[in-house]
Amino acid sequence: MPPLEAHKDPELESLVQKLSAAIHSDHLANIWEGCRMPGQRSIAELHDQLLSVLFPGVFGLESVAEAGLNNHLRATLDALYAHLSQCIALALDFSARQGGVLPSTHPDNPCAAYEGEAKTIAREVLFDFPQLRSILSEDLVAAYEGDPAASSVGEVLLSYPCVQAIATHRIAHALYTRKVPILPRMLSEVAHSRTGIDIHPGATIGPGFFIDHGTGVVIGETTVIGRHVKLYQGVTLGARSFDKDDQGLPIKGIKRHPNIEDHVTIYAGATILGGDTTIGKNSVVGGSCWVTTSIPPNTVVMSERAKLRHR
Amino acid sequence: MPPLEAHKDPELESLVQKLSAAIHSDHLANIWEGCRMPGQRSIAELHDQLLSVLFPGVFGLESVAEAGLNNHLRATLDALYAHLSQCIALALDFSARQGGVLPSTHPDNPCAAYEGEAKTIAREVLFDFPQLRSILSEDLVAAYEGDPAASSVGEVLLSYPCVQAIATHRIAHALYTRKVPILPRMLSEVAHSRTGIDIHPGATIGPGFFIDHGTGVVIGETTVIGRHVKLYQGVTLGARSFDKDDQGLPIKGIKRHPNIEDHVTIYAGATILGGDTTIGKNSVVGGSCWVTTSIPPNTVVMSERAKLRHR
Amino acid sequence: MPPLEAHKDPELESLVQKLSAAIHSDHLANIWEGCRMPGQRSIAELHDQLLSVLFPGVFGLESVAEAGLNNHLRATLDALYAHLSQCIALALDFSARQGGVLPSTHPDNPCAAYEGEAKTIAREVLFDFPQLRSILSEDLVAAYEGDPAASSVGEVLLSYPCVQAIATHRIAHALYTRKVPILPRMLSEVAHSRTGIDIHPGATIGPGFFIDHGTGVVIGETTVIGRHVKLYQGVTLGARSFDKDDQGLPIKGIKRHPNIEDHVTIYAGATILGGDTTIGKNSVVGGSCWVTTSIPPNTVVMSERAKLRHR
Repeated sequence: MPPLEAHKDPELESLVQKLSAAIHSDHLANIWEGCRMPGQRSIAELHDQLLSVLFPGVFGLESVAEAGLNNHLRATLDALYAHLSQCIALALDFSARQGGVLPSTHPDNPCAAYEGEAKTIAREVLFDFPQLRSILSEDLVAAYEGDPAASSVGEVLLSYPCVQAIATHRIAHALYTRKVPILPRMLSEVAHSRTGIDIHPGATIGPGFFIDHGTGVVIGETTVIGRHVKLYQGVTLGARSFDKDDQGLPIKGIKRHPNIEDHVTIYAGATILGGDTTIGKNSVVGGSCWVTTSIPPNTVVMSERAKLRHR
Repeated sequence: MPPLEAHKDPELESLVQKLSAAIHSDHLANIWEGCRMPGQRSIAELHDQLLSVLFPGVFGLESVAEAGLNNHLRATLDALYAHLSQCIALALDFSARQGGVLPSTHPDNPCAAYEGEAKTIAREVLFDFPQLRSILSEDLVAAYEGDPAASSVGEVLLSYPCVQAIATHRIAHALYTRKVPILPRMLSEVAHSRTGIDIHPGATIGPGFFIDHGTGVVIGETTVIGRHVKLYQGVTLGARSFDKDDQGLPIKGIKRHPNIEDHVTIYAGATILGGDTTIGKNSVVGGSCWVTTSIPPNTVVMSERAKLRHR
Repeated sequence: MPPLEAHKDPELESLVQKLSAAIHSDHLANIWEGCRMPGQRSIAELHDQLLSVLFPGVFGLESVAEAGLNNHLRATLDALYAHLSQCIALALDFSARQGGVLPSTHPDNPCAAYEGEAKTIAREVLFDFPQLRSILSEDLVAAYEGDPAASSVGEVLLSYPCVQAIATHRIAHALYTRKVPILPRMLSEVAHSRTGIDIHPGATIGPGFFIDHGTGVVIGETTVIGRHVKLYQGVTLGARSFDKDDQGLPIKGIKRHPNIEDHVTIYAGATILGGDTTIGKNSVVGGSCWVTTSIPPNTVVMSERAKLRHR
């Protein structure tokens, strides 16, 4: 943008100065200064590129015909590799400056120092995609088999919000395990915004995972979920409480969220809390249950329902 | 897209081959191949065209002035009729190939065989619109009369998420009752993504329907809702459980969701389950109630609240 | 748009006439006629302009470098001031015609009569922004300190949905307190659609406010929230019931929603109802609690959990 002259309207110009001062002078000014990360809309575009490689034609405008598949993949991967590498480099820079608090050492090209590392990580993650695609196929089949309203696996692929939520999570988790900062969370928020399903990139989730409806689901950072687990809307896999340090701040990096073993089903609105809470394999947690201790395998847990008063 | 040469970067080219193989070789490869449906973003555009005929100017960029109404309708209906017909034809093709599992018989023009049928259905649905518009007016008035925070019916029209959710549902249901596959679900997911309100296209819903706030509402496929029913956020009208066939798969096509009679109000977070559960007319279901048996007419049902422990 | 000729397809032309008649003849026709408000997509653009002044580069495509900050603010404020003034003028016109029921007195330029008043309000609101920015900084720090999963304040800014929800609310509230009709609600719905957090513009909310995850949160019009309050997903701050007038319509404008004092924490899924319900300062309301009477300060309130039945 070429430099603009000051507003002819002196009041608006004074507002520019006041806003600029507010951004600079509050105790968070540096955060903004360090914040060279692409904006949320740009990360949403990266998100859509990533998904269009895993499921060509499903989330965008155009279907992709069989004959054009390899060309679609070539063109998309080319752009994606460049875009993903750049975002990773900026994320590494952002983190090195403690979340943007420290000034950039290379203000004109903040990601220069991280280019090589970023490209290596971007390649590793992209080379995970063939395997991710196979796991996501298991997720699709699990949805079809788990929902009487689904008339085909194709219907699941085209119209179930969990597909986007879980595909995004598997990508974000691949970045998270390679210690890419901030970017995985920005990607998972794109899916959260569109689906109402909030999965922290740190969560470990096995294949054959199905979330029906999904709005309001929250899955915390240190959750571990086995194979062929099924959740409904409004399920929270959360923290019971968290320890605080000497300054009263929550201690980061502790196992705070539950373990869900293979073939568990958790119905709508159930809340399962705590890092040492384990739901044993093949168990079923009924709707709206509140669970803060472990449940053995092969168990059905139902909440004693409050009596209804009729008038 | 003209054929691209292989990547100069041999690693990326090898990734193209691996991804292509993963898409082809897993047991869902055919689903993708058969999936000639337009992508979700394209269906979102169709969705917006449909709504802009029912409520000109409300959901898009521009308001539509009185004098320009008929021209707006002409221009939009022209494009909409073509777009809707094409999507219906592709949906019929998709379903004929069992959700995309079978290869297309006309790979170059998959919807050719369904063009006539699709146009007939598209016309029928569009000719329902004048009546849908009248029913939606009743919905708007019900919202205004049901919410003390609404200062005019116009405010409801412009700013209540239930307007989009219910308008989309009434269109999707008109397609569903004419046995159009997949497309109604894709349309309802557009509204679900934007509003957090998940209404299956199969649900039958009378006029004067109001959902306040709406996030987390789930209304299942075989739900039947009468006239002037009011729901709040987080209400589930769902299935109690479902029968499985010899192979352990849920049996599709059974009445699984409840009946809500005329003038019923259901407060936030209530869960009503089961295909033989009926909430009788004029009844009220209190917030967070869990209901799995029928409630007679003219009854107020409240949950016995859990005692609160103070510390 | 130049006048279009009638459709060559006489059936489609008859549909234009029928739709136009439905829009004109139902008892809500006037609403549409009066509805010169910009469409929802246009208000979403206004929303994004407003946020890009408070947090340059965070929500859009591009990051904004330190050196370009003042130019970014100048260019954005220029466009924003014009856009905001116009929307306020149209909103005042909309309201003067009782929510669009009365015909416009200046159909060719409906906002002419309100131009001066609208510009005054737009300036006042924009001049609130430096102070809003400081309050929002306190919100960001509260989120960082309140969530063990947050590794920096910058991560909160870039990836927490509550940032958008709360920033939008603080702007919408500044318009609401200046009695701008309809526009604040349309803005808050943009944020609700993207975050699942539904805050009525009328709610009064102190600094240091944090909502974690957020999907399903509903905060009613007359809620009053103190300083450093923390909410989790699915919390409702709502009305217990509402009085009706002689015609059975809910009476508008009564205090219906609760008061939450300083340093209160409310866990996921709790419901707090009633205009005379106050949660005293430093108190904690446990997950899924149902609260309809006041809680004294310094109190922890937990729900007696329903027993779980194992099978």
